[in-house]
Formats: sequence, structure tokens, C-alpha cells
Amino acid sequence: MTGTSKLASTGNRAADGAQNCNVALVGFGTVGSSVARILCERSNTHLHLTHVLNRNVARKKVDWLPSSVQWTENIDDVLSSDVDIVVEVMGGLQPTEDWIRRALASGKSVVTANKQLIAHCGPELISMARRMNQQIEFGASVAGGVPVISGLHEGLAGDELFKICGILNGTCNYILSQIESNGVSFATALREAQKLGFAEADPTEDIDGLDARAKLAILARVGLHCNVKPGSIVARSISAIDTVDFEYANQLGCTIRQISWAELKGDELFAAVQPALVELSSPLARVEGSQNLVMATGTYGGETVFGGHGAGGHPTAVAVVSDILAIARAKQAAKSYAGQPVEKTPTVTADFTTKHYLRFLVKDRPGIIASLATILSQCGINIDSVLQKPGCPKSHLPFLITLEECKAALVEQALRQINSLDFLVQPCLHLPIL
Amino acid sequence: MTGTSKLASTGNRAADGAQNCNVALVGFGTVGSSVARILCERSNTHLHLTHVLNRNVARKKVDWLPSSVQWTENIDDVLSSDVDIVVEVMGGLQPTEDWIRRALASGKSVVTANKQLIAHCGPELISMARRMNQQIEFGASVAGGVPVISGLHEGLAGDELFKICGILNGTCNYILSQIESNGVSFATALREAQKLGFAEADPTEDIDGLDARAKLAILARVGLHCNVKPGSIVARSISAIDTVDFEYANQLGCTIRQISWAELKGDELFAAVQPALVELSSPLARVEGSQNLVMATGTYGGETVFGGHGAGGHPTAVAVVSDILAIARAKQAAKSYAGQPVEKTPTVTADFTTKHYLRFLVKDRPGIIASLATILSQCGINIDSVLQKPGCPKSHLPFLITLEECKAALVEQALRQINSLDFLVQPCLHLPIL
Repeated sequence: MTGTSKLASTGNRAADGAQNCNVALVGFGTVGSSVARILCERSNTHLHLTHVLNRNVARKKVDWLPSSVQWTENIDDVLSSDVDIVVEVMGGLQPTEDWIRRALASGKSVVTANKQLIAHCGPELISMARRMNQQIEFGASVAGGVPVISGLHEGLAGDELFKICGILNGTCNYILSQIESNGVSFATALREAQKLGFAEADPTEDIDGLDARAKLAILARVGLHCNVKPGSIVARSISAIDTVDFEYANQLGCTIRQISWAELKGDELFAAVQPALVELSSPLARVEGSQNLVMATGTYGGETVFGGHGAGGHPTAVAVVSDILAIARAKQAAKSYAGQPVEKTPTVTADFTTKHYLRFLVKDRPGIIASLATILSQCGINIDSVLQKPGCPKSHLPFLITLEECKAALVEQALRQINSLDFLVQPCLHLPIL
Repeated sequence: MTGTSKLASTGNRAADGAQNCNVALVGFGTVGSSVARILCERSNTHLHLTHVLNRNVARKKVDWLPSSVQWTENIDDVLSSDVDIVVEVMGGLQPTEDWIRRALASGKSVVTANKQLIAHCGPELISMARRMNQQIEFGASVAGGVPVISGLHEGLAGDELFKICGILNGTCNYILSQIESNGVSFATALREAQKLGFAEADPTEDIDGLDARAKLAILARVGLHCNVKPGSIVARSISAIDTVDFEYANQLGCTIRQISWAELKGDELFAAVQPALVELSSPLARVEGSQNLVMATGTYGGETVFGGHGAGGHPTAVAVVSDILAIARAKQAAKSYAGQPVEKTPTVTADFTTKHYLRFLVKDRPGIIASLATILSQCGINIDSVLQKPGCPKSHLPFLITLEECKAALVEQALRQINSLDFLVQPCLHLPIL
């Protein structure tokens, strides 16, 4: 975490000078195998995956990991090794908690994606890590790939936050979006979500708000510095929401979302996870499918929004690897500022391939479109549409030509000819359509 | 930057054990005085403001800073002192660059909000800081209070980002929003922005994209690890945009924004700052007034969005103070994990005061509204509106009552009586309107 490397590649340090960091993966499910893939695919990294632990290792083994990786079903193999960072992506409260305590006790730092564990005993584990001069990081425990934990803890550390609200459960958001846009019942939307893998076979944790509640407890600790037990936060189910509620909500200029809300007012923390009406103009109303969004409000900086993929193997793995890198950086910084950054120096070009918007202002006369179309066609450019709004003066007539996808440089070349045409009142305005 | 303090208050360490950090403020304009205010107002902090440097100090002096603060016009007073962190919020390229080099050379870390300086000679200053075993942080140089630098550098470090696009200039976004929503000309919108302080007397840097281009160069370095000179990025002015362009854009399902875009494809970086059409459904289209938004896209995590106040004294000061805290944490971590975190343990309540949505499903008969209204009124609750969609069966008739703002507990109390009424087909659905 040295600012000195902010303009440098963090994952691409040359091996010389940089200290290697050995990593063990405890759990090889969706997230675990994504973490392994990122660690393998990123070149020149100083992170070395040395162990993978899972039940029934024989069935789990993959051929795309280096043969140097030790596969095991026994946590002692990991704890007795020279692993620096233990990555827990196994889930559950036990034996996970014990194993994390033992890892910290054996002088290893820990990265975990386990929201229930951190929500329930985060402070104790953090105290233990501090005593052992180690770190425990849990950026993946809330909102998957959305870097909200580091955003609250580092990026907004200078503010005094008093409110955090957001959409923390992608399953609920997917189901509510489906009821809203397809007019299906809750039961149908849930079945659909289960079929597509957006909801578990037993969806209680998600539907009843227990998953989001654990995440809200973590955010309240990190962002509001409030020691909150998840059980003290009210959680209400979304299962009573019907299509008719979206119709009524719409009449009120609103939609319905599962909202997690924590707001500090004096000595009281107003906190709940519940379905609620939110105005259509709010960023919360625009969160679609399984996306997540967190809004943090501070005394000085006002409202800041973080959004992205809240779940899924790869996005969650990004958060895990970011935490691994943060620990590796801190370990290095404590020793030296070693590790020469490798930077790319690419050719910079503005020659985007996009659709294009050409707005003309002309003195009207017959044959204008024909002249323009001829030049464009000679340059190999295809016209997509021609639009002209009615009721404009013939002497200053604005009209629009949109072009099919092509390189910007090609359009500029055509415009050099076009802009010399005598019917133009001003040079053509050319904008990309992104 | 010890993960061990993530669930702890960063600004509120008890003095015992924590090492104090002396801070000098170079520049006491809008941002500088906001930084001073945050440093003073945050209680129990281990950060001590010891020096304020500005031209014409006599005119700048304020009475709300402790008398221990030394006011000076001479940089040597700062450089020869025991200041740990020099905060540069003065702007300009010279003498700023010299002063920052001298601060690093005298063993001080630096926080700067100076985008032009970092865009032009960030890598050199960072190398110098590394040689001196110091840090230079510049989170405030892009998007003010939006923690996008730390988000890209730390939160998304685990991903391989290949595209960064966003709205990085609040002045342009304000002007374009005004043309769009009020149908005024560019010149009128600019004058209005200048009157309200959203645009400078000389707006060239903003309007012509030079401000956003410097920020884009910084983001390309931090997020894409590309060494890019700001001058190599094409910047196009927004001054040619007219009201008619918003009409045409709307017909195409789009709006127009000043978009900063950097996308790595092989050895080429496609980069430009220009007005462009963006689809109305894109988060970029929904950025209003002087807000900023950055979207980062990675190989693994997909799209992540950061949004908030991109400018203004207080939001920018939050970014500056966050950087100061990051350096202070790193200095402490190198020595020990000292500093006992102070946490609040508030009472947790779900008793929000909001408007409320009560949706009933009833077997229709005369007098239903009267019964409900009586109970609500006895509880001291005011009805806001009653809505009933047409064409529903009498035996399962859904209708809606919205309530004026009141405590949730009061509504729950009324619902206990209401839910025993015999005309209800199912218990009333009660949602807050947030």
C-alpha cells in the first residue's frame, strides 16, 4: 500500500527485488477456481499459488494449474507450510472460523469472502490478526467485485459517513426486476432465478434478507464505525411483493427494491433490510438484474456511489485477488519499496470505430443530400439514417445524417471535402455515438 | 493500510500508542480551508495541522484554527520543520513542482490535488518519492471526492482493466445538462455556469477538454498501467453543441455528454475527450449537473461504476484527507500496529420515519375505507392518498393507501388492529417509501 506504486502495475512486478508471496486456497468451488485462474493467467506476478485445499480433492483436481501446486484435504498441510496468505473461499461458520484462527495463530495473513463469518466474529478475528502482526482482509464479503470495503475504508476515510444504503443482494434484485418487467408472480420469478442459477435451491437467506443483513452489518462497521450484530438488524422478506405492487408503485413515480439501509442519528442506528419503494429517479431504482449498488453519504463529501457485479465467480475473485495484493504490498512495504513496476507505453489514437452523428446547418436548395451521399459513398462510408426536424428556416436548416460503424479518421477525411461545399452555413458537427 | 483496522475508526484512534503525524497545508483557498476544517473538526485524530502556507497570509488568517498553527509565506519554514506530510492544494505547475521535489528531498511525504502536475510529471515524482522512502498520493486529482484512484489501484487491483470511461469535468456536464433541460444556447448556459461558480472566468481548460484530458491520462496510468502524455490524447471542445443536437440525439434514444474514454486494444490505446452521444439507458447519460462518474471495465470483474461529487471544496478535501490518512496508516504500519480503534455501539432500530405504502387485498363491501381510516386516525396517522386500479374482481380487490410521514412502529401498531378485520383476504403489505 505504498502510494509510490499508484501509477505502476501492481500485478506485473518483475521478479528481481520483489519478494514472493505464497498463497494457499482453501475451497475450490466457483470463487476458488476463479481466484486460481486469475493468479495463473496474470503474468510475472510475485504471487505463487502453492496449495489448494478441498474435500474430495481427487474429483476437484484440474489440469490447468502448475504441477507445483499441492492439492490436499488436510488443513495441517497448509498451516505447517511456508504459505504467507491463506485464502478462505469455502464458506460456512465451522470449521472455517477455527481454521482462520489457526492460520492467524501460525503467523499467516488471511483473505476471506465469508460474509456470515465476518459479520458474526469479524472484530474478534481482526483483534487476533493485530496481535499476531498479521492482516485479515474481507473485501469480497460485501458486493462481490464492487470495491466498496476499500472505498469506505480508504477512499472515503477522510469523510465522516453517516448513512449507507444500497442493494446488496443480487438474487432479490433479479427477482424484483423480473416481476417488474415481465409481470410474473413472485413464485414464477423465483423459479426462473433458480433455473438460471441466480437463486439457490433453498433461497431463504436471500429472500428473507439474511444475506443482505450480514453485509449491512459489515458496511456499518467499516463505514460508520458502528459495532452492530447482524441479528439486531430487522430483515423483512420480499416474498409478499406482487405484480400489482409494481403497478401502484409506478403510479407513485416509484419502483420496489430490496433496500439495505443504515443511518446514524445521534446514538441511534436506523437499520433495516426490507423491500421498499424508491423513486424512479434514484440510482437505486436503476439497478437491474443481479447488479449491486452502494451509496455512502458523508458530512463533507455528500453522496458517493459504487456499483457493479455483486456476485459470480470472477467478480468475487477479483475482490479476493485485490485483497491478496493489498497484503502482499503491505508485507513488501514493511521491508522495502522493492519491485520494479512494468509499464506499457502504447500508441495513443483517437481513431475509434463507432457509429457517427453528422449535424449540418445548410442554406437549403435541391441536391444537398445527393452531394453529401456521393462524397460519403466515395469514401466507403454507409449512411444509416437522415433526420430533419420540421419547421426550420430554409436559410439555416439543420439536419442530421447518422453513419454506420466506421473509423473516425475515415469520417474526418470525408468531412474535409464536405466542409468546403458552398451550401454549408457552418462546418459540420461530428460526434461519435458511443 | 493494515486490514486489521478495517472494522475500526480510522480517524478516531486514541492518542495512546498511536504516533502523531504533523501536516502542513500549502495553499489556503477553497480546498485548503476545507482540509483545515475537516482536520480540526474530526475529534481525537492523530493528525496535527502545524503549518499553513499562502501568499498574503495576513489577509488569509482565520480564527477557527488553533493558535499553535504557524502561518507563513515561506516554503522554507515548512521544509525545515518536523512536518511529516506536505499537502499541496495551491495548484499550478511552478513553483509547485519545485516545492514538491524539495519536500520529498527533505524526507516528507506529499499529498497533492494537482491534476496537471501529476498528469505531466507524476511518474518522475513517484520515482523520486520511492527513492526517498516516502509516498506521494494524489487521490484528489481526479473526480474530487469520488474515490476512483484508490478504487482502481487497490479495490480493482485483482482485475486486468482494459477500459476506463467517464464524465470527468463537472463544468461541461453542467453546461450540457442545462442546454438539454432548459433548451438554452451554449453561450447562455456558459454564462449561467460562470454566474453560479460552476465555470471559471476563462473556461477554456474545461470547455476544450484539457482538464478532463489530464485526468484521463492519470486514470490510464493508474488503471491501465499505460504511460500516456496528456498532450497525446485528442481533446475536442463542447462549444459547437446546440439545442438542436439534443433534439436529434433524443430521437436516436441518446443524449450528449463530454466523455473521456481510454481503451486498450493490443498495443494501441484508443483515447479521447470529446462530446459524444450516449444511450439514455447508460449510467453516463444519467449524470446530472456537476457530478462525475467513472466506469472501469476489466477482464474478470466486468463493469464497475464510481460516482459522486467531482469538485467543490469539501468533496475534494475528503479525498485529500483520505490520502493523508493512508500515508499516516502506512507510516504507523511500518512501526507497529499501534492505535486502539474507538468504536461506537449504538442502539439499533428499524423505526424509520418515512411515508408508507399499505396495499390491501379485500373482499369488497361498503365501509371498508371508513373502517381503515378510523383505525389509522385513532393511531394519529394521516392518510396521504387512496388508489384503486380498475377491473379487479370484488372477491380479491387490491387497493392502496399511502400515509404521510410517520414512524414505522406507529403503522405496525395500527396494522395489528387492521389485520384482524374480516374483510381482509391476506394481511396488509406494508412498505416504506424511501
